[in-house]
Amino acid sequence: MPAKQQHITKPQGFLAAGVACGIKKSGRNDMAIIAGQADVACAMLTTTNQVVGAPVIYSRKLLPKGYGFVRAIVINAGNANVCTGKVGLANAAAMAKQTARCLGTKADKILVASTGIIGHQLPMEKVRSGIDAAAAMLGTDQDMEALHAIMTTDLHEKYAVATIKIGGKTVTLAGMAKGSGMIAPSLATMISVLTTDAAVAPAALYKALKTASGRTFNALTVDSDTSTSDTLVLMASGQAGNKTLTATGADYPAFAAAVYRLCDQLARRVARDGEGATKLIEITVRGAASDADAMIAAKSVANSPLLKCAAHGGDPNWGRIAAALGKSPARVVPEKLSIRLGGTLVFRRGMGANFDVKKAAEHMSGDPVIIDADLGLGNGVFTAVTCDFSREYIAINADYHT
Amino acid sequence: MPAKQQHITKPQGFLAAGVACGIKKSGRNDMAIIAGQADVACAMLTTTNQVVGAPVIYSRKLLPKGYGFVRAIVINAGNANVCTGKVGLANAAAMAKQTARCLGTKADKILVASTGIIGHQLPMEKVRSGIDAAAAMLGTDQDMEALHAIMTTDLHEKYAVATIKIGGKTVTLAGMAKGSGMIAPSLATMISVLTTDAAVAPAALYKALKTASGRTFNALTVDSDTSTSDTLVLMASGQAGNKTLTATGADYPAFAAAVYRLCDQLARRVARDGEGATKLIEITVRGAASDADAMIAAKSVANSPLLKCAAHGGDPNWGRIAAALGKSPARVVPEKLSIRLGGTLVFRRGMGANFDVKKAAEHMSGDPVIIDADLGLGNGVFTAVTCDFSREYIAINADYHT
Repeated sequence: MPAKQQHITKPQGFLAAGVACGIKKSGRNDMAIIAGQADVACAMLTTTNQVVGAPVIYSRKLLPKGYGFVRAIVINAGNANVCTGKVGLANAAAMAKQTARCLGTKADKILVASTGIIGHQLPMEKVRSGIDAAAAMLGTDQDMEALHAIMTTDLHEKYAVATIKIGGKTVTLAGMAKGSGMIAPSLATMISVLTTDAAVAPAALYKALKTASGRTFNALTVDSDTSTSDTLVLMASGQAGNKTLTATGADYPAFAAAVYRLCDQLARRVARDGEGATKLIEITVRGAASDADAMIAAKSVANSPLLKCAAHGGDPNWGRIAAALGKSPARVVPEKLSIRLGGTLVFRRGMGANFDVKKAAEHMSGDPVIIDADLGLGNGVFTAVTCDFSREYIAINADYHT
Repeated sequence: MPAKQQHITKPQGFLAAGVACGIKKSGRNDMAIIAGQADVACAMLTTTNQVVGAPVIYSRKLLPKGYGFVRAIVINAGNANVCTGKVGLANAAAMAKQTARCLGTKADKILVASTGIIGHQLPMEKVRSGIDAAAAMLGTDQDMEALHAIMTTDLHEKYAVATIKIGGKTVTLAGMAKGSGMIAPSLATMISVLTTDAAVAPAALYKALKTASGRTFNALTVDSDTSTSDTLVLMASGQAGNKTLTATGADYPAFAAAVYRLCDQLARRVARDGEGATKLIEITVRGAASDADAMIAAKSVANSPLLKCAAHGGDPNWGRIAAALGKSPARVVPEKLSIRLGGTLVFRRGMGANFDVKKAAEHMSGDPVIIDADLGLGNGVFTAVTCDFSREYIAINADYHT
């Protein structure tokens, strides 16, 4: 009874599959392939953590500039293949080789990503049979199976689809993401794959993806713990028939904006589905001395355990917001600062404002929580997204054993 | 039935008192005075948060260099007098004035500290009567009453006493601290008062305190949220009769070492008594490219919610330690990194080591948890202390309402 909901194969020229091969003890799907019908333009961003998984090392070698042409990406969940030494690197390469063999191409056209537990070697017999099984299932009705195969502690299926017109042609973009834990400032969800049938030069694809991620996936934090495996991939098949987009072309801004909106949707869904999360929190810092300052200040609030607890408890505790802004290295002058909760002015010029506490508490108890802080110093602006901190976060992460 | 345990008045020349004046709704003690019998040398360090409470602003004006001579410090709990504007500043000054009147001195000899809720004006009638009552109770058998009056969500009484010989004279040092929530890297416990009967020049006192705090209170993090009110004060009465210590004197190192040990004891007790904490976690990073890198890397581990959850669950999850080191801006080369848990080598040269999982799990389940990471790059070393993350942290901070 496979779920037929289509997303990443909605753009022309892509196939997907996901199967269970026994890496996850639960017996759930754990091996996915998302493939072009032919080689596709591709852009990739990976984690900024200095400890990186073997698949990240392998995939970076394929696309040293972050873009080029690939045939497919193979992804497993249940084992991240991180801190696994030479054996781990050989296993990542073996995954690519096996996938290439199934697809009739070469290993240097296959990106690899893994998510799950750190420090264990992949069970390669299961992995190989999983790749064979997934390759045999590739189609345009297996998107949900592929999505399930990249999920770990995710509770919700996170995907998005959009269409735009480019040069008179209808172009489709789609994406799926897994997130949940170890989600933090420097590149966000552990794994997200985006597809489009637009014809886009790889360098332009990379520019659009990098620009979009800066204020979407990179604005996202669940617990400030940056993963060793974060991978964001955008593949473009060119089958929409538009004239190939370049970064200087007239149609590029519309395409880049569509990529941005798609990343924004997926990033928000990852935040809302953070481990133990019950709600989304959106923190906009404006009036900062610079955009960089705005980002630092917004993330300081987004990463504050005290603020995340206050949002969980529905407490309109602006003191924790002011303190989280003030502890950040971004320039903050309390006398110029104002803070709004869901539109209600709660703090003005260094002091609490006279406000309707019941209304503000209602907003904090709801979903999403919208926090807006104006530093009153300049034009810098940044919006960070996160989730609340709940007992379930502790339960999940105290009980998830190596 | 006052508790008679003596600590901060054990050094000669100090009096203390603590009373309940109704700021805390619970009816517990909430107003303390710690006073010299005459003016005493004093050193003070305050929060690095850019949003600071009125008492911090007031006290900094008294000691612009961080040291000088004072008669006393007056401290209230239950209301932090933060983000309270001109009225708040006037109230902090009024607290000093009232205390000075009771002690027969001037307001510019009285330091002020407040802890508790942010954004509410102090109930000055209660505050004034509390100061009068505390001043009337000043003695050498009221130390526990004073300590209770500075506690908020603290579960345990945190104090320490030490004696050393300086120039043939016995010198006593003592301290008390309150901590618990909003405890983070840039100056630690919200309020700690240290006393000594050593004769010490104020500048030397400041140097000893600042040096000690760098690797004790500043090595401490409960939740990465730096308070707006952190205040650390060391007062020296000179009644031990030693020749006045200066920073270049022969006896200075012994005194500075004693201050360090006292701060270290208190900081560890604050960590162990973090909100919801069930255990102490000590993270030493050695072999870093510099001491600064070691501090950044150690604090990155200490602030990792995932690692704090793993310690709570007794999970010897070195992957989370490696990931937390790698995400920090400190230089980390996985192939040179080794990690020990309670002496057991669990990670070596980029990979998990073959280790006794049961033994490592037993260590992670115990208290304290000792993590040692050797980056293999240089001589930098730093030890950070923190506590585990529990469901109770969430409960305390989701339910503690403004």
